[in-house]
Amino acid sequence: MSTYNPVTPDVVRQVQQIVGDGYVIFDDPERLEAFSHDEVPDRAYRRMPEAAVRPGNAAEIAAIMKLANRERIPVTPRGAGSGLSGGAVPLHGGIVLLTDRLNRILDIDPHNMTITLEPGVVTNDVNPAVRHLGLCYAGYPMSLETCYIGGNVAENAGGAKALKYGVTSRYVLGLEIVTPTGDIVELGGKLIKDVTGYNMIGLMVGSEGTLGVFTKIILKLLPLPKVNVDLLALFPTVDGAIAAVPRILTESGMTPTSIEFIDGESAATACRYLNETFDYKNAGAMLLLTVDGPSLEQVQREYEAVGEACLQFGASEVYVGDNKTTSERLWRIRKTIPEAFAAQGEHQGNEDLVVPMAAVGQLVAGMKELERKYQVAIPAYGHAGDGNIHTRIVKSPDVPANRWREIIPNVLRELYELTAKLGGRISGEHGIGHKRKKFMPLFVSPEYLTMCRAVKRAMDPNNILNPGKIMDMEESQ
Amino acid sequence: MSTYNPVTPDVVRQVQQIVGDGYVIFDDPERLEAFSHDEVPDRAYRRMPEAAVRPGNAAEIAAIMKLANRERIPVTPRGAGSGLSGGAVPLHGGIVLLTDRLNRILDIDPHNMTITLEPGVVTNDVNPAVRHLGLCYAGYPMSLETCYIGGNVAENAGGAKALKYGVTSRYVLGLEIVTPTGDIVELGGKLIKDVTGYNMIGLMVGSEGTLGVFTKIILKLLPLPKVNVDLLALFPTVDGAIAAVPRILTESGMTPTSIEFIDGESAATACRYLNETFDYKNAGAMLLLTVDGPSLEQVQREYEAVGEACLQFGASEVYVGDNKTTSERLWRIRKTIPEAFAAQGEHQGNEDLVVPMAAVGQLVAGMKELERKYQVAIPAYGHAGDGNIHTRIVKSPDVPANRWREIIPNVLRELYELTAKLGGRISGEHGIGHKRKKFMPLFVSPEYLTMCRAVKRAMDPNNILNPGKIMDMEESQ
Repeated sequence: MSTYNPVTPDVVRQVQQIVGDGYVIFDDPERLEAFSHDEVPDRAYRRMPEAAVRPGNAAEIAAIMKLANRERIPVTPRGAGSGLSGGAVPLHGGIVLLTDRLNRILDIDPHNMTITLEPGVVTNDVNPAVRHLGLCYAGYPMSLETCYIGGNVAENAGGAKALKYGVTSRYVLGLEIVTPTGDIVELGGKLIKDVTGYNMIGLMVGSEGTLGVFTKIILKLLPLPKVNVDLLALFPTVDGAIAAVPRILTESGMTPTSIEFIDGESAATACRYLNETFDYKNAGAMLLLTVDGPSLEQVQREYEAVGEACLQFGASEVYVGDNKTTSERLWRIRKTIPEAFAAQGEHQGNEDLVVPMAAVGQLVAGMKELERKYQVAIPAYGHAGDGNIHTRIVKSPDVPANRWREIIPNVLRELYELTAKLGGRISGEHGIGHKRKKFMPLFVSPEYLTMCRAVKRAMDPNNILNPGKIMDMEESQ
Repeated sequence: MSTYNPVTPDVVRQVQQIVGDGYVIFDDPERLEAFSHDEVPDRAYRRMPEAAVRPGNAAEIAAIMKLANRERIPVTPRGAGSGLSGGAVPLHGGIVLLTDRLNRILDIDPHNMTITLEPGVVTNDVNPAVRHLGLCYAGYPMSLETCYIGGNVAENAGGAKALKYGVTSRYVLGLEIVTPTGDIVELGGKLIKDVTGYNMIGLMVGSEGTLGVFTKIILKLLPLPKVNVDLLALFPTVDGAIAAVPRILTESGMTPTSIEFIDGESAATACRYLNETFDYKNAGAMLLLTVDGPSLEQVQREYEAVGEACLQFGASEVYVGDNKTTSERLWRIRKTIPEAFAAQGEHQGNEDLVVPMAAVGQLVAGMKELERKYQVAIPAYGHAGDGNIHTRIVKSPDVPANRWREIIPNVLRELYELTAKLGGRISGEHGIGHKRKKFMPLFVSPEYLTMCRAVKRAMDPNNILNPGKIMDMEESQ
């Protein structure tokens, strides 16, 4: 177990010398509280930082990392704080390193179809910056209106377009990072292919801020699809909707941009929250599908094929969203689900299970069994086409909080054991953080963890950068 | 510098006990010679192994690695030996580990759209095994008729379809590896998304057999495109062809499957070698483009748009290959280039430069300048749409061999310096091996190399697995 030193006034003075007096928050619990959590609903995962710092560039971050190694103080990088596994929570106290001041778009290069930006750029601001060039960034996490691109890279964010376009890692061509020991290193470049040395970008993406602080990110852009159409297919039952997904994929020969699954309870919760008048009440489940492409004819042919496949595989109705207003209305239902559940209180688990595509039906059936067994609600939604199912485990109002605290570990363990049995994993896109690390051995071998620890130790010998995330460093875990 | 022990008869006996007597080659220079080289033309990069072993499964490979660590003997894994950077060459002697007996397809899963195979399966055998299911594997290295899938993963092979479909890494969902110290570790699974722990698959793919021996590979399959059409566009000049590439990509809004570039000399050399009667003589350069998709109408619309873009940007003629015979004939020209040059003798360099897409024109112009300056031929061809340009640097018959040996390091250094100046790298898909390692510092920072060494050391503390590749372990490099 690493032991860390406290952030003393002397350390604060040194940090102030690096970044300037106005950019350090210390001895101010009210302001620091905001950095004690991310979007994980359960308050048990919160931890207070001792200080927060807002550096303005890579050199300042490098100096902070050198200081932190010298003084043995943990440093936890933080983007927008929209994470869902506690990745940005300062588990061992110390310094939270905010990236909000590194928020510039540095370069847009239409000839190489790239954009270079700092980590604090809000994901939703990328596309408006490149759309007029006929280009787009394909990353589309559900939190895109608030999350930072740096957080997307740190968590290897997925999202609703990953089925066709892949996850964040597919688009990261280059990174500038500050290493845990305070070196600034350039990785990659405006290169579509590159096998010059180990794929350190691949290792950094999804490392949850434990192997480096990203200070510059080069993203690959794609030609902007000229047309996109959304379909909302209503199914009488969850089973029917889930069974349709692999068949749409394997039998239509198409890869839609999105196949999002929303069970009846998730749809109803979101629709009520939104005062949505849409007739959702008879649907046991919905699939929200998007098709995009370079021409209306092509998209039309594809969405007709996909829509027909839905009807053939049991949809009772298929609504077409072929204009911006309708599309936004359909997607608003999907995007609002976590917020709509969160509004019901803190007694919730948020999960991010991923299984082989063909096993989604068994996973969702298992959730329904657990609902009955434990008398909790386990609504399911998410990226069915990727095998990635989110759920909130929600306390019903008539269950007392202490009873819920007893139940939840058992629900989780059974859910995870089922997931493991199906060949699945504990996280498809939200990450492990400290929220899920104790369950890692259910899904990965001791040898794999040994390998991860060896890499972490090689990069961060003092265990300074975001310690306690993904796995503990002791072999006993 | 690691010092290694020789492979003694006692070591051979131990290896024989692991794999069986018939699967060890020792004290037989004639048979071992085949494992002293890959497809790098220059004989200077050859090294003889002391022994070769043909294990039958992961457990045997693990036992060999444990033995090799105990006895301090280097082990170099080898697939089909079709590499182009010396990756499979046993630089420090020792044992060459052949994967040819691990050649089974273990599982084809149409519901999850995956195939699981051993590393010794020939890449070209993957698609015939899944085509009847309406599925395909998108990897398409130019050596696919001989190379092994394990080698593709080790080198992160690119190939002619990477423009639309990406390189090998995009398709590797799972690996079973034997670590350098002899543990068997499972990574990933039949999962499209997975952020459960560090992305060790990303690190393994392209690690050139230095971080693990792959014993099982799970590949993602795609819906088989129902139609594909090839276009051969003839351009009067190299400049014209190269200038057309980014414009086709950014202005047509399409992403063709392939945009292959072939300069006049490469085309003429391949056509002569093939006794091809096709009228190639007036073309200063060619682009070979492929468009594929789910329907004839869609492909037709796309290839017409791409063909028109070629004509608009200066092509003198565009031939359409819309049947198997014509398509194969066109692709045969492209695929034969390396072999056609190789037939001219061993005095050649083979290079694999990659630059930002928009800089390909400057790179090729620089090659032409070097041709004039040094009186050598530097024909260019390759994956122009990816910014990845191959070249053979070929001695002209009237230059004596010793003069060529003096010239070639200068040509290379100038070519590499230009590539670095353009923001490029030394290898897009062939790897570094030992052929290019001394040039690494031109392209990457000392801090990056330190990071790579730290990872290698963490995984392979005795530097047993394929030592001397990518970089030397001494900081002095």
